[in-house]
Amino acid sequence: MSRKYNFYAGPAVLPREVMEKAQAELLDLNGIGLSILEISHRSKDFDEVINTAEAKVRSLLGLSDDYAVLFLQGGASTQFGLIPMNFLKGGTADYVNTGAWAKKAIKEAKLFGTVNVAGSSEDKGFSYIPENLQFSPGAAYVHITSNETIGGIQWQEYPDTGDVPLVADMSSDIMCRKIDANLFGLIYAGAQKNIGPAGVTLVILRRDLLERAADGLTTMLSYKTHVDKGSMFNTPPCFAIYMVKLMMEWVEAQGGVSAIERINRRKAALVYDTIDADDFYRGTARQVDRSIMNVTFRLPDEDLEARFIKEATAAGLMGLKGHRSVGGCRASIYNSMTMEGVEVLADFMRTFRKRHG
Amino acid sequence: MSRKYNFYAGPAVLPREVMEKAQAELLDLNGIGLSILEISHRSKDFDEVINTAEAKVRSLLGLSDDYAVLFLQGGASTQFGLIPMNFLKGGTADYVNTGAWAKKAIKEAKLFGTVNVAGSSEDKGFSYIPENLQFSPGAAYVHITSNETIGGIQWQEYPDTGDVPLVADMSSDIMCRKIDANLFGLIYAGAQKNIGPAGVTLVILRRDLLERAADGLTTMLSYKTHVDKGSMFNTPPCFAIYMVKLMMEWVEAQGGVSAIERINRRKAALVYDTIDADDFYRGTARQVDRSIMNVTFRLPDEDLEARFIKEATAAGLMGLKGHRSVGGCRASIYNSMTMEGVEVLADFMRTFRKRHG
Repeated sequence: MSRKYNFYAGPAVLPREVMEKAQAELLDLNGIGLSILEISHRSKDFDEVINTAEAKVRSLLGLSDDYAVLFLQGGASTQFGLIPMNFLKGGTADYVNTGAWAKKAIKEAKLFGTVNVAGSSEDKGFSYIPENLQFSPGAAYVHITSNETIGGIQWQEYPDTGDVPLVADMSSDIMCRKIDANLFGLIYAGAQKNIGPAGVTLVILRRDLLERAADGLTTMLSYKTHVDKGSMFNTPPCFAIYMVKLMMEWVEAQGGVSAIERINRRKAALVYDTIDADDFYRGTARQVDRSIMNVTFRLPDEDLEARFIKEATAAGLMGLKGHRSVGGCRASIYNSMTMEGVEVLADFMRTFRKRHG
Repeated sequence: MSRKYNFYAGPAVLPREVMEKAQAELLDLNGIGLSILEISHRSKDFDEVINTAEAKVRSLLGLSDDYAVLFLQGGASTQFGLIPMNFLKGGTADYVNTGAWAKKAIKEAKLFGTVNVAGSSEDKGFSYIPENLQFSPGAAYVHITSNETIGGIQWQEYPDTGDVPLVADMSSDIMCRKIDANLFGLIYAGAQKNIGPAGVTLVILRRDLLERAADGLTTMLSYKTHVDKGSMFNTPPCFAIYMVKLMMEWVEAQGGVSAIERINRRKAALVYDTIDADDFYRGTARQVDRSIMNVTFRLPDEDLEARFIKEATAAGLMGLKGHRSVGGCRASIYNSMTMEGVEVLADFMRTFRKRHG
């Protein structure tokens, strides 16, 4: 069977050349006679893997030494709990409620203190990024979700939180565009959209925040442990970290994050322009908040949507069904989705409209 | 460079045929046109992977439906904390202190209640499994480490704990021999020795224990979540679980756990017989407690040990250095280490003894 185009919300497609390199090296890493799947995490060969992955994350995001870069396990869902566990300590934190992912983060934070919802777009089905945020005085941190995969909305400009650390779940849009990472106290991201396979979570943490981290946590739930041990207190997810290294090399080879952003904007524009060409398709996110990662749209009725998804699947365009909580359609076009794949999608959308519009 | 023999304590060697299958399928899983690295964890193709992995763990270990089988992240070190967090709740638990791994488990448990050390072999450098265990009345559970990789000792018969749940860290010897899994309340194991690569942790949990599990934990730290959601509350480590599936198929193809045990006993006997042949090599574990996974031994002096390790490495026998906390030598011969690899090691040991003995 021929290779398919994967528009699923995640895990996402990986670049063909990255997977081919992983495949070629799978039985023998760099000619050392052992596989990345079986080398010791204390070996110099693995040191080279994790150190290179970290160095490239640093250079691609422009991170100073004020930040620690960690490769952890458990996904963003684990971080939803670890962040308040380490930093809330019975105080108040500001959360912006932009959708299902923000809500999950809020739910966990409530176990450790008071959550002030500084803004919400729940009134309109999470179709926009809220403005006029109401921050609380003395907040431990401000938490945002930089991109919501279900609503298809994305922060275009990050809020100014002054001295209060800004914490962002960037699972679904990390490295999709140039950002000033130094604005943030903590950034976290499950790797499986833009920077690797499922099984590793990137955490970027301003080191001075550790001074206010809670004591008395179990070893693996304390950020201090992972900063002190360079993500190697115990055996890390070696293969997933190796894949992040390959992905970072790929991002570099594309010309870095700015070059990736240019391609991503062209990809997103092609789908949104197809949607906006007439009123057959209708984008669900407020135009200024549209995500360049997850394009959400509706068709004139649900029967047509079902037909659209079915025919797309038959044509090798996989995963275009919207999240079950909102219905409709969604095309997730993460970093590794090729321009070619997006062109095939846009062609399919135009043809479908011609037949059914 | 030719393929090496990996005697590291972990991550461990994987069977050649398992890695070749993983390599062959890496770009296209079962002809579906997508890679295991990029398919959605909500797809039917991944369902088949995780369901097969679980079914095979069940059949190989003879687990009834009373048990849940979970694939989690964070390694055994995370479980060291989750077990008391979920089940200790300010009470008392019995721990048997057999070495560095047991000690780490004890350290975390102390955050959640009282630890009674029911037995310890610390007096003799963790060279034996303690007897005459002193269990405390009303203990929440009894915790043991079924195999200690550093001391090279292994429980030969598990303690009878009556109605008190027996909890075992089997990271370094799961599926190395036939056990009665139904003796246990909870078994956990980082996959990277016997059942897969680093990045996934197997947890086997008697379902009735959930009734006594703590409330108020974050979602990802509660076993209830993972039992309810079949390890898929969030994106699981798909590739690592896929590798566990391949490993379980491999164990089946070898004839199951009993067949693996026969081979493991022959492998271990070959190394121990070489050690015991005269007094050049000296095994460090009490003979009746010797591990069939980690063979620990000394040479007449440290200079000879350094030379032994250096020459072995040059001959392609990797990772024979003992743990830095105890020195000496160690050969880790997990399930996937071939008889051939062990024969090469035994030959090397005999030759080295002839030259230097």
